[in-house]
Amino acid sequence: MDQPVVIVNFKAYSEGIKKGEEIARAAREINENGEVFVAIAPDFIQLKSLVEFAPVFAQHTDAVNPGSNTGRITPEMVKASGATGSLINHSERPLILSDIEFLISAFRELELTSVVCTNNIPVSKAVAALTPDFIAIEPPELIGTGIPVSKADPGIVEGAVKAVQKVDGNIMVLCGAGISEYEDFVAALDLGAKGVLLASGVVKAKNPGMKLKELVGI
Amino acid sequence: MDQPVVIVNFKAYSEGIKKGEEIARAAREINENGEVFVAIAPDFIQLKSLVEFAPVFAQHTDAVNPGSNTGRITPEMVKASGATGSLINHSERPLILSDIEFLISAFRELELTSVVCTNNIPVSKAVAALTPDFIAIEPPELIGTGIPVSKADPGIVEGAVKAVQKVDGNIMVLCGAGISEYEDFVAALDLGAKGVLLASGVVKAKNPGMKLKELVGI
Amino acid sequence: MDQPVVIVNFKAYSEGIKKGEEIARAAREINENGEVFVAIAPDFIQLKSLVEFAPVFAQHTDAVNPGSNTGRITPEMVKASGATGSLINHSERPLILSDIEFLISAFRELELTSVVCTNNIPVSKAVAALTPDFIAIEPPELIGTGIPVSKADPGIVEGAVKAVQKVDGNIMVLCGAGISEYEDFVAALDLGAKGVLLASGVVKAKNPGMKLKELVGI
Amino acid sequence: MDQPVVIVNFKAYSEGIKKGEEIARAAREINENGEVFVAIAPDFIQLKSLVEFAPVFAQHTDAVNPGSNTGRITPEMVKASGATGSLINHSERPLILSDIEFLISAFRELELTSVVCTNNIPVSKAVAALTPDFIAIEPPELIGTGIPVSKADPGIVEGAVKAVQKVDGNIMVLCGAGISEYEDFVAALDLGAKGVLLASGVVKAKNPGMKLKELVGI
Repeated sequence: MDQPVVIVNFKAYSEGIKKGEEIARAAREINENGEVFVAIAPDFIQLKSLVEFAPVFAQHTDAVNPGSNTGRITPEMVKASGATGSLINHSERPLILSDIEFLISAFRELELTSVVCTNNIPVSKAVAALTPDFIAIEPPELIGTGIPVSKADPGIVEGAVKAVQKVDGNIMVLCGAGISEYEDFVAALDLGAKGVLLASGVVKAKNPGMKLKELVGI
Repeated sequence: MDQPVVIVNFKAYSEGIKKGEEIARAAREINENGEVFVAIAPDFIQLKSLVEFAPVFAQHTDAVNPGSNTGRITPEMVKASGATGSLINHSERPLILSDIEFLISAFRELELTSVVCTNNIPVSKAVAALTPDFIAIEPPELIGTGIPVSKADPGIVEGAVKAVQKVDGNIMVLCGAGISEYEDFVAALDLGAKGVLLASGVVKAKNPGMKLKELVGI
Repeated sequence: MDQPVVIVNFKAYSEGIKKGEEIARAAREINENGEVFVAIAPDFIQLKSLVEFAPVFAQHTDAVNPGSNTGRITPEMVKASGATGSLINHSERPLILSDIEFLISAFRELELTSVVCTNNIPVSKAVAALTPDFIAIEPPELIGTGIPVSKADPGIVEGAVKAVQKVDGNIMVLCGAGISEYEDFVAALDLGAKGVLLASGVVKAKNPGMKLKELVGI
Repeated sequence: MDQPVVIVNFKAYSEGIKKGEEIARAAREINENGEVFVAIAPDFIQLKSLVEFAPVFAQHTDAVNPGSNTGRITPEMVKASGATGSLINHSERPLILSDIEFLISAFRELELTSVVCTNNIPVSKAVAALTPDFIAIEPPELIGTGIPVSKADPGIVEGAVKAVQKVDGNIMVLCGAGISEYEDFVAALDLGAKGVLLASGVVKAKNPGMKLKELVGI
């Protein structure tokens, strides 16, 4: 993958339900342009219906095998939905360590893309040892603040990129928390990140589709 | 609601993904007949696409409001999917007590149907005080055994019905665990239950649609 | 038990470790006076060493039987420590419903006193159906604010007392959150509560022993 | 530390309560001999009273700071008890990844010893990146079986030792699950482990003190 990457996490925002298709269509437009790769992470219910527009990630997957489990979302369900992969271990949905390892391994087998979220540099190093496809570092204290991590704490982004690359050069690092403007996106790339993970900055914008296109500079 | 009620929990069985529509179509056929009311509880991903066939319940809902929450399924999402309601507090997805109360209350406001699972008579009494629409009692040790609760422990069904009715006569009691034959279904009704909650007995059957029709005697 | 009841929750405050014995000695003095019954809820580590001074409650107990469980505190351990009972389901350590029922029942058998915390009136009614010894209602939004529940929301205290008594007249109701002065304690009793559950108001006071005596008016 | 290491986890076994002091006294005797270093991991309630006999580890510590937390055991409490350290992330008490990192870091600052449990080689590599003092690998499927990991799966012990040493040569690797005889202990050392973590093999023995001495060959 050559282009920078943007993943838009709809979280449980009402706007994500109402304007999910609008965001998905904007993502499709950007992806057709080809300079930036945009994926969306809608709620579980929209996974299946939005795959026709853009690459889709689940916001979370449970570390359980098919079987007698109720109310869980398994790697197999994510695969069956047509999704590309899943966020794993988001700070709003953290997982025990052995489940993170289970999921990265299950995703590899199912050819799903794993995006594991981390909160600091040591945790990023630990996750790198498990060789996921992406690591998305998000200092929890900046989430939803509108203060971009690339400005508030550029060292954590550079440090995570360096630490992760040292363990495995194939793992791509995203950064998140507070990203809402084109300049935040560019700053993230300048710090060595492969792209950004964002949420409210786009999803809660008045015109989220337009906002997404602005943010990637298209 | 006058007819007996059957809820088919797909759990995380692979068959629930592969044969979900077959089961949903059988449910529609039974519902058109009108003697028994059948609802299905598929995985989150199929919620939206199966509502056209039959009344659909989520297997679980999280006690969170719309907002900055990742990987959660909110009452609002369940509503937006077109589902009728949700199982709550299944023994494979238990909830803290204040979340059960939150959900029953949120469901009432959103006109969603709450089906709260319980494991014994005292817990059923406690849940009855929160006035959900349904209470589904399932002794966890019988789940998946094929030994029907209506045979293994008829006293727990009768006792739960009596205890719940004493608190609030409008709450309907289902029983579950080990139900897989027409006679189990009839036995449940004879014990005073409004119907049954079942899973593997139908979902893992060779022809789950046919099995479901046999089970309800149609 | 005829006197009003005060339970002092040390939480994980550093002061609870440093001044635990001072608070325990003040509790002993008050109990010798006989007009108010004071119990303390220190951290697990001090349970055993403080029982010589005053009635001691664990802050939490896990719903597990003796056996192959690591890092848990069982009802049997609480009993073996010489403690009187345990807080159960504190809003900072909430439990799934079936575990609350398990614990109330296990405590009854072991002759331990159960103090189940609740966050509102419906949840208090649900817990009353399980017949614990005490129900302590604490609106979570007032915890640690210094705004006493007896002033901020007297209706919730009166309502909980009435609702609980209606289910079982033997259950004693405590109220908590924001209690730090003698007048808060008296107000709670005036609203029909049997006593109060408090924490920072005493534990973080400059002289916690003296503060505790002031609070109970001795 | 030059000698081999044995940690005896009392779990929640009734025997751990009744015979805790007996085991602690046997540990003292072995430690006086000096050839093997034995530590014990009793329940929280006995932590403080057993430190006089032998090095003591908590079975679990919560990743919380001192403050408004109820029913938790903090690193500061463990320190105040006089304990040497804690097991962290036992498979019966697993932790989210960021909490494991928090604890290892907090323990370093408090000069407590961290023993992080893992279930396989990749997870051991991930934990090694966080540089705890010890990593104890225990295949969960062998726990409590009496089938020693050193016999059932020697490759996992050798593999973990190699993988961990490659990340950081100072981290000591223990192995666990099914260890109950002297030959299991010796086999573990032969496979490169620094020692063993065990539980039922000693704690549930008829004479646990004698059994412990037999197990270490003294």
